[in-house]
Amino acid sequence: MPYNLAAPDRDIEELVVRRAEVFRQKQGINLLTGHCASRIDPAGRTVSGTTPEGKEYELPYDRLLIATGGTPIIPDLPGFDLPGIVTLKTLADGRYLKTLLKTGKVKKAVLVGMGYINLEMCEALVRLGIEVDMVKPGPVFLPWLEPSMAQSIREEIETRGVGIHAGHAIERIEKTAGGLQVICRDLQLNADLIVVGIGIRPNSTMAVDAGLELSVGRSIATDRHARTSDANIYAAGDCADAYHVVSGQKTWIPLALRANRAGWAVADNICGKNAELEGIAGTAVFKVFDFEVARTGLTASEAAEVGFEPVENMIKARSKAHGHPGSSPIQVNLVGDKKSGRLLGAQMTGKDGVAHRINGPAVALYCGMTVKQYSQTDLAYSPPIGPTWDPTLTAANQLLKKL
Amino acid sequence: MPYNLAAPDRDIEELVVRRAEVFRQKQGINLLTGHCASRIDPAGRTVSGTTPEGKEYELPYDRLLIATGGTPIIPDLPGFDLPGIVTLKTLADGRYLKTLLKTGKVKKAVLVGMGYINLEMCEALVRLGIEVDMVKPGPVFLPWLEPSMAQSIREEIETRGVGIHAGHAIERIEKTAGGLQVICRDLQLNADLIVVGIGIRPNSTMAVDAGLELSVGRSIATDRHARTSDANIYAAGDCADAYHVVSGQKTWIPLALRANRAGWAVADNICGKNAELEGIAGTAVFKVFDFEVARTGLTASEAAEVGFEPVENMIKARSKAHGHPGSSPIQVNLVGDKKSGRLLGAQMTGKDGVAHRINGPAVALYCGMTVKQYSQTDLAYSPPIGPTWDPTLTAANQLLKKL
Repeated sequence: MPYNLAAPDRDIEELVVRRAEVFRQKQGINLLTGHCASRIDPAGRTVSGTTPEGKEYELPYDRLLIATGGTPIIPDLPGFDLPGIVTLKTLADGRYLKTLLKTGKVKKAVLVGMGYINLEMCEALVRLGIEVDMVKPGPVFLPWLEPSMAQSIREEIETRGVGIHAGHAIERIEKTAGGLQVICRDLQLNADLIVVGIGIRPNSTMAVDAGLELSVGRSIATDRHARTSDANIYAAGDCADAYHVVSGQKTWIPLALRANRAGWAVADNICGKNAELEGIAGTAVFKVFDFEVARTGLTASEAAEVGFEPVENMIKARSKAHGHPGSSPIQVNLVGDKKSGRLLGAQMTGKDGVAHRINGPAVALYCGMTVKQYSQTDLAYSPPIGPTWDPTLTAANQLLKKL
Repeated sequence: MPYNLAAPDRDIEELVVRRAEVFRQKQGINLLTGHCASRIDPAGRTVSGTTPEGKEYELPYDRLLIATGGTPIIPDLPGFDLPGIVTLKTLADGRYLKTLLKTGKVKKAVLVGMGYINLEMCEALVRLGIEVDMVKPGPVFLPWLEPSMAQSIREEIETRGVGIHAGHAIERIEKTAGGLQVICRDLQLNADLIVVGIGIRPNSTMAVDAGLELSVGRSIATDRHARTSDANIYAAGDCADAYHVVSGQKTWIPLALRANRAGWAVADNICGKNAELEGIAGTAVFKVFDFEVARTGLTASEAAEVGFEPVENMIKARSKAHGHPGSSPIQVNLVGDKKSGRLLGAQMTGKDGVAHRINGPAVALYCGMTVKQYSQTDLAYSPPIGPTWDPTLTAANQLLKKL
């Protein structure tokens, strides 16, 4: 959505990958849009709720999939329900924002939260010529990144004139004569538009009411077959948990690929194919202005929490070969386990060649590779695409000295 | 070298990574440049040859490293020794070419061979405004690529006005009034410059004379410690063989990363550190104009040769998310083993996001991952860097249907 919003000539409807008619007409699926599902009866195997006309309905099932997704978190503070305060979730949110931005009346925006989505929104709004401030209560910008790596991203954003206000807890939002004002104890920020992006919570209330087991962050607990604690009910997508491939423990990292993959697995399982889902590595990447930021696996502090003895090391390399034009710095932080030598995670930042480079370490995590084994892999080299030693290999070689 | 030659403002000396003085003065190494080494006496543990002044010298050793590299192959045909016919190997070759190209007198070049180096040279020369023809005896352009993938590269090159003449065996080169002429039975190509890039052979003569065992392509046979058949003699770089990580068999794929890595391993072993080298995957990538071409592991025909039952499948995907601007097609061919389900290799082409994407499959080969296991990995997704399912995952999902 941020990328679409950044491009005035792109229609927001382009984001629709498949329309209801395709399900109904081409696939013969009885797709009941506008129907609110409010109750599952696991014993009777029915789902019930209300139709668009407000009538009660009840549907029987042999197998049920809960794919209720997540809901953006809105702080329970005064003023967060005022008009002009938005989250990015539904196509309706996108349509509202697209229309609002087209009026040209939004001169100043405040983004509450500094996660992936708001960093993408920050770029989108700046590209539209809007003045942007970002605010969050936590004092550390991108706390899961090694401090000097986080600092380079912060500087990139500040260079574009964006105000980064970390460590400011919001007290309330007020309507002013000209628009809105975000009020912290020691900071006031005026805005025509406020985007709240402080995370989502899984939509698991119906699952709770049905007596299903919950997991990390109140997501719905599922096994490797995406089955909930009720053998006839599956859950997939942002509402469901997953195993972490590094820790082997349950985790909840709601991202697109896993959601999509779990959907396919559930379909297979319902059709009797016995699809097992592997764990997730939490691989994520985002762009903010010219910077690419990528991560996979665990950070050192996450690794310590689940019982590893993490050792990390950050290196600086170049995105292209010695002397090749257009080369820029890449930072790679690798995390390994002192006890087993295992690679636990990687974080990477830079302006060139970062995004896809995270996939090498990501695959290594699936194999439980040690840092030493990773350091021996044969990765691509050509002057325009990298140095002889891929930066992740240089990082592995250096981390080995500490393990 | 091709990239440097393509940029008139870059000095060829920039390619020097470390000068002799650094070895001598900073590292205290007795570096004897200009000394020809011609004979190894394994029993007496000496190397002998001639000094720059033409005198005989003899050096004793406890451990010896042969790092003699490779020599470009020149066809044994009339006229290949004429001036204006070059290979790309030494800095002297680069200096000669740089000077020649600066004169502005090279209007037309013929490249003999269509491997990585000549494809890079093709781009470099076209960028300098030189008319280029490429010729080779084999009928198939890039025979290790799936035909439709090879075809798109070929079209990309032909669009730039380059003549691709595959299937023309050269009979001789002749000097003409205006320059040179490459003569095939049914084709004559005029040239001011001819670049021969048909591969290298390992410089293993001295090793043969010393009674060392040879391996694939007459490379020097080494074990996982980079040791030759003589326990006191190591070999590393383009002159030495390697194990292939997929087949487990010996192979000879002279590329930069392995050469560099083997050098470090030998140093460790000589110093008593017991460094073992993993096999290589033959990961390689090159750019030609806007196209990136990457490979890792075995092609289907290579896999069949070493006893696998290869099944391959080519898919087309996009380099960025649905509807994201700047997206372009990516082709991915994956090779799997029918018997074991194992991933054996990958080839990829496209104008965007190909080069680093090969590293995911490359790492998978080191773990002996099955296609199914690879299909479950958690790879990076963000609209500007790829579709939700990385193209290599889509390729794995599709190949699974055939396995």
